[in-house]
Amino acid sequence: MKLLEDRIRLEGRVLPGNVLKVDGFLNHRLDIALLDKLGEEFYHLFSEAGVTKILTVEASGIALASLAARYFKVPVVFAKKHKTSNMSREVYSAEVFSFTHNCVYNVAISSHFMDQGDRVLIIDDFLADGNAIKGLASICKQAGAEVVGAGIAVEKGFQGGGDRLREAGLRVESLAVVESMDPEKGILFR
Amino acid sequence: MKLLEDRIRLEGRVLPGNVLKVDGFLNHRLDIALLDKLGEEFYHLFSEAGVTKILTVEASGIALASLAARYFKVPVVFAKKHKTSNMSREVYSAEVFSFTHNCVYNVAISSHFMDQGDRVLIIDDFLADGNAIKGLASICKQAGAEVVGAGIAVEKGFQGGGDRLREAGLRVESLAVVESMDPEKGILFR
Repeated sequence: MKLLEDRIRLEGRVLPGNVLKVDGFLNHRLDIALLDKLGEEFYHLFSEAGVTKILTVEASGIALASLAARYFKVPVVFAKKHKTSNMSREVYSAEVFSFTHNCVYNVAISSHFMDQGDRVLIIDDFLADGNAIKGLASICKQAGAEVVGAGIAVEKGFQGGGDRLREAGLRVESLAVVESMDPEKGILFR
Repeated sequence: MKLLEDRIRLEGRVLPGNVLKVDGFLNHRLDIALLDKLGEEFYHLFSEAGVTKILTVEASGIALASLAARYFKVPVVFAKKHKTSNMSREVYSAEVFSFTHNCVYNVAISSHFMDQGDRVLIIDDFLADGNAIKGLASICKQAGAEVVGAGIAVEKGFQGGGDRLREAGLRVESLAVVESMDPEKGILFR
């Protein structure tokens, strides 16, 4: 999506350790007009998928998921992150390994808020190694819900997570896929 | 706001320890159509206040703030919660004591995202003792920004935080103010 790529080129900062800082518009200060357009684009991409629920994970996925959900006219459920596993009959949860923070955390939702037969669109701001998406997909599977796809704002294509999910059969639609990035050479999109 | 009060009466659950569970529509599963109406109501209340930025805190304030921001056509900044104080020139931060969790945490934003002269509307899903709002107001003060008011979905009026903020001169607009609640007698609104 050219609008998002242009904004990343303009304001994104590439930092050592494969960090792409876009906190001026995507995940700390939120450019709501932009995020609303991204949400609308997800709707164009998935309007025929029969989505009944949008699933995201706190905190930075919530704004994008909420603005997209206005177009789909469906509720959002956001998974909570915990440092420890919280196993109970009341929650669906999954372990996620974060390469960025080099730690394992848990994502969990109340079992009341995901139903068998739900058709779930997963939305998140970033996709790198794909582990968060895998965790969210696992939650859906535990509930007997079907994941119709994942809508991502920025995919770090060079980390391979998105392509591995696609190879495994998941429909992944990323609005900007960074093919390479370098503090000096800048950002190249797929 | 009758729409919100009705929904709380219908789905809210009063648990021991002054807990009001509204996670079916406000802060875990998100009824986006409802939250959009709450956001629009905040716009009606504060449309003349010259709001330039909406400030909230992760995670459960983000959806409401983002949907409200569509009406105001301003960006959202969400403060991040940390267990430890992160003092640096790069952030504005404040300590918040949580009665609910009986702990102190820090709220912080990047200093790049709040400017002198900003007219800030603070939005959050809940107001109980008012400490989170005080922390967010402190952040604004550090930046030289002016807080034009606070828009709250549910105020637990019996905990007094909202009234103390009002007495201190802050304009607090809560869409539902719970005057009393009891697991057996139910919920009474102001």
